[in-house]
Amino acid sequence: MTHKEKLSEIRKQMQQDNVQAYIIPSADPHISEYLPNHYKCIPFTSGFTGSAGTLVITQDFAGLWTDSRYFEQGEEQLKGSGFTLVKQKVQAYPEYIPWLADRLSAGDTVASDEKLLSLMLGTILTEKLSVKGIEVRSKDYLSPIWENRTPLPTEAAFLIEDDFNGQSVNAKLAAVRESLNTYAAQYHLISSLDDIAWLFNIRGKDVSYNPVTLAFALISQDHANLYINPAKLTAEEKETLLKSGVEVYNYDEIENALSRLPENSSIFIDPKRNCFAYAKLIPASARIVKETNPSTILKAIKNETELSNTRNTMVKDGIAITRFLKWLMENIGKTPITELSAAAKLREYREQQEGFSGDSFTTISAYRAHGALPHYSASEESDAELKPESLYLVDSGGQYFYGTTDITRTLPLGPTTEEEEIDYTLVLKGMIEGCKTRFPKGTCGYQIDAITRNPLWAHGRNYGHGTGHGVGYFLNVHEGPQAFNPTNNPIAMELGMITSIEPGIYRPGKHGIRIENLVNTVTDISTEFNDFYAFETLTLAPIHTGILRKDLLEQSQLDWLNEYHTKVYEKLSPFLKEEEKQWLKNETRAI
Amino acid sequence: MTHKEKLSEIRKQMQQDNVQAYIIPSADPHISEYLPNHYKCIPFTSGFTGSAGTLVITQDFAGLWTDSRYFEQGEEQLKGSGFTLVKQKVQAYPEYIPWLADRLSAGDTVASDEKLLSLMLGTILTEKLSVKGIEVRSKDYLSPIWENRTPLPTEAAFLIEDDFNGQSVNAKLAAVRESLNTYAAQYHLISSLDDIAWLFNIRGKDVSYNPVTLAFALISQDHANLYINPAKLTAEEKETLLKSGVEVYNYDEIENALSRLPENSSIFIDPKRNCFAYAKLIPASARIVKETNPSTILKAIKNETELSNTRNTMVKDGIAITRFLKWLMENIGKTPITELSAAAKLREYREQQEGFSGDSFTTISAYRAHGALPHYSASEESDAELKPESLYLVDSGGQYFYGTTDITRTLPLGPTTEEEEIDYTLVLKGMIEGCKTRFPKGTCGYQIDAITRNPLWAHGRNYGHGTGHGVGYFLNVHEGPQAFNPTNNPIAMELGMITSIEPGIYRPGKHGIRIENLVNTVTDISTEFNDFYAFETLTLAPIHTGILRKDLLEQSQLDWLNEYHTKVYEKLSPFLKEEEKQWLKNETRAI
Repeated sequence: MTHKEKLSEIRKQMQQDNVQAYIIPSADPHISEYLPNHYKCIPFTSGFTGSAGTLVITQDFAGLWTDSRYFEQGEEQLKGSGFTLVKQKVQAYPEYIPWLADRLSAGDTVASDEKLLSLMLGTILTEKLSVKGIEVRSKDYLSPIWENRTPLPTEAAFLIEDDFNGQSVNAKLAAVRESLNTYAAQYHLISSLDDIAWLFNIRGKDVSYNPVTLAFALISQDHANLYINPAKLTAEEKETLLKSGVEVYNYDEIENALSRLPENSSIFIDPKRNCFAYAKLIPASARIVKETNPSTILKAIKNETELSNTRNTMVKDGIAITRFLKWLMENIGKTPITELSAAAKLREYREQQEGFSGDSFTTISAYRAHGALPHYSASEESDAELKPESLYLVDSGGQYFYGTTDITRTLPLGPTTEEEEIDYTLVLKGMIEGCKTRFPKGTCGYQIDAITRNPLWAHGRNYGHGTGHGVGYFLNVHEGPQAFNPTNNPIAMELGMITSIEPGIYRPGKHGIRIENLVNTVTDISTEFNDFYAFETLTLAPIHTGILRKDLLEQSQLDWLNEYHTKVYEKLSPFLKEEEKQWLKNETRAI
Repeated sequence: MTHKEKLSEIRKQMQQDNVQAYIIPSADPHISEYLPNHYKCIPFTSGFTGSAGTLVITQDFAGLWTDSRYFEQGEEQLKGSGFTLVKQKVQAYPEYIPWLADRLSAGDTVASDEKLLSLMLGTILTEKLSVKGIEVRSKDYLSPIWENRTPLPTEAAFLIEDDFNGQSVNAKLAAVRESLNTYAAQYHLISSLDDIAWLFNIRGKDVSYNPVTLAFALISQDHANLYINPAKLTAEEKETLLKSGVEVYNYDEIENALSRLPENSSIFIDPKRNCFAYAKLIPASARIVKETNPSTILKAIKNETELSNTRNTMVKDGIAITRFLKWLMENIGKTPITELSAAAKLREYREQQEGFSGDSFTTISAYRAHGALPHYSASEESDAELKPESLYLVDSGGQYFYGTTDITRTLPLGPTTEEEEIDYTLVLKGMIEGCKTRFPKGTCGYQIDAITRNPLWAHGRNYGHGTGHGVGYFLNVHEGPQAFNPTNNPIAMELGMITSIEPGIYRPGKHGIRIENLVNTVTDISTEFNDFYAFETLTLAPIHTGILRKDLLEQSQLDWLNEYHTKVYEKLSPFLKEEEKQWLKNETRAI
């Protein structure tokens, strides 16, 4: 079936049910960012493969709502699909809801598969539309037309020994239960796969890049029930879980468990990380506590074992990056290299590292104008040849036992323009300002974001994405609750949080620049004014200095850069061959 | 009656009504910051005169909840009152609510005069306590025991000609009505006195410092009703108002007007700026739109007339400040000067200026350790003599026809310590960073706040108050919706907003430093990345440079300071006598 035919089939079902609009979000019942193939509903329906977007279908319009990261890709992929690109102003804001409220009339019905709506989104949708007399209903119009739909993944899960996590499942459950007590909540539904992976010290291979396994959990003071395809676990693993008080049930049984909760019970549900359909299964008499998952906050604060393992992982990743950069600089203009072949080479160097288990996201290997697309992913069609001029951007990361990395470097492959050099210097200036900031306990991500952007603003430049995101421990490369971005997310930076700092400058049609390190929040000084925190830079890899405009950097920023490079050389050189050492020595020399 | 006797009388009434806790907030039915004497309930009950706090009384405890600005003053003033100081962690957060929820039991009752609770506070109180089965009730236990309570003020109000406001009442009403349409609201209750002053181009003298008059307003598409003591307006003024479609009713009639709203009507009420009691008068069938008053946002964005008048006012105020600083520097150590006499002198210089109508708040004239109390107000008892050493801080402002000022300067009266000089330099460094920031359209106050604090954080210093607040136009010196502070208030800086930038460093027992200018948001450059805004500094007065540690300032910061001083001299000198000119020339010389 073509996308147009699918659209027509969906519209037929809508007509039969007297449904005026159908919404297809990018999600699964775990409200995941990376989806199992089974839930790739938007690519199936429209052909669009970006990671963020929503399809909305009426009888006379079909649109993909997505943000500026995907405007070009959307235009391209939607051609001939019957879907029109609708440009969202604000990333992740459901701008199609006011659109629907404007166009539909009292008595109309909007449908969607409510397993794919977060509780929060479902609540907003219902609130905003019910005011206008519009009904919201759950319908799955894709399954009936989806031939040979990929079944749910059945990859084996695996347990990680407590020693490698620094905290036992028992201890983690105790911490979560303490939080539940604070909110006087008897039950706690967890649907988010990274929370489950962390809490049960379990990992899997059910989706790309995120080492998670499909499961739900229902926790009370006496029980910790894990709902998972039992074939994913060996008898021994089930035994180990049981020793920590974790009982294993079938994946689908979560629905019954929720429906059968006692009347008048209280249940803790994170509205952003559970689906609307499951929240509706809970008896109406229940009191629902809607707060961020306790495990999300506990998980973000890495313990000493996790930090120490991550530091070792950074050495391994740094060696791979160093070898890759050396190879690239030495071969550019001599051997044919494309975006895809460069990415493959980087993967090759990472695979040589002990404990490497895969990429933590699709490598962004972007030459010249491709670099201006912050989420560019090279394909066979787009694959550009790297030439000995202008800038090349590579944003990549690895999943290691044990630790997750995410690093961006931009480098000149030959002669560069003045604009490229000034932009490059300002991006680095911003990154250094972020990395070297001292800030009082209680400081939130939006404050770090402003400090990082300030040097770019001073020169009339800016970037459309956040400055940084939380990073998991052998888990999702994007994790909350903290983030560095301009929105007013009131999460304070806590000791042990790992976050990226990655400002950029993008000039469509010309070049894109981004430089990214991961940092850990550490104690700095205590004064009569407050306890101050600072960032420990975890990422270890040279930052190109050849095209820097030194006059744009302050002495304190140059000092930071030189100290960072000294550390990079000290940490990486013991593991390098002599000629690699020489190369790194030169790349990290003081300027 | 002593405070202890009053407390005992309140407790008797509580017992009779079976009320377990009584709350006395610092507010009036307009949710004002500065209260008419009639509503000074906290000073009456406890003796505490600070501008922020809440009394909570149970049978076995009586406490004043207030924030760090008032810890010392609270301890002092509550002695022997029967009230205990309870230190709030977060300014303005009602921390007594969880305290009450913890201590009371299901079936208990909490009472307060609900005319003194904002709709927001009343809603939170009711929500948090009703979960625990605690009832919330409206009771006034003060009137029965308050002998000779000051009646409501009856000062005449006065109208300001449209020409001086740059916008007619008609045009303002049209703008507010447009907002009501957006929210499909038929009615709009306004209780906040500054909103009413702005909307009706009316001013008054009912409270100290804020040139407002006691009134309510109820707006619909057809009517604009002003509820005010009719004796405050002349027949001519009523006629003028009527010509703009404004009908005048008795102040008390607002209660009837609200009770008699048609069933199923829709009404727009700002939950922070209307009282809980009046919101409860509205028929239960009404749909209530809870958003920030449209007039609050419209008022914050000054028009060209207001800006141009404010610029003229700044010249007048700058002349007064210049004369005061010159007088102080020339007389210190020669004539006896105290905090109070210095404040009186400053007032004298301001009174010489055409259009001066009074102070915009109590002058903070604070020597040495007194400067470390950010809200210090000198009294006969505390009045310290100024000596030719250490630092003196003066934070003051004037209400002028037409314009409101607010300025802080800190200066050495003689030899200073290294710590004082470094602190002084860092405060100025922060202020300059704030003032010279270029930022993209859409930037919120919390981002400017972080940029201003960053230079202080770098040296392990910080301040416990916000970086700045909105300032009215011949109106309240504190006005919203914008503010520069670390909380996540998502209000973007708009062109024409006047805001203060006033970082500080406070060392209890030693010294306090604050430097404050008012700035206007103006367009700067437009690039392919965004439209960028900047600040036009409005305040015109020399900033002391003698004790600056130049090595702590960057060249761009020195440049800003020198340019600012050039402007100060250019704008003020034409109005100064020759010897004043000479003095200012020297004070503003480039460094």
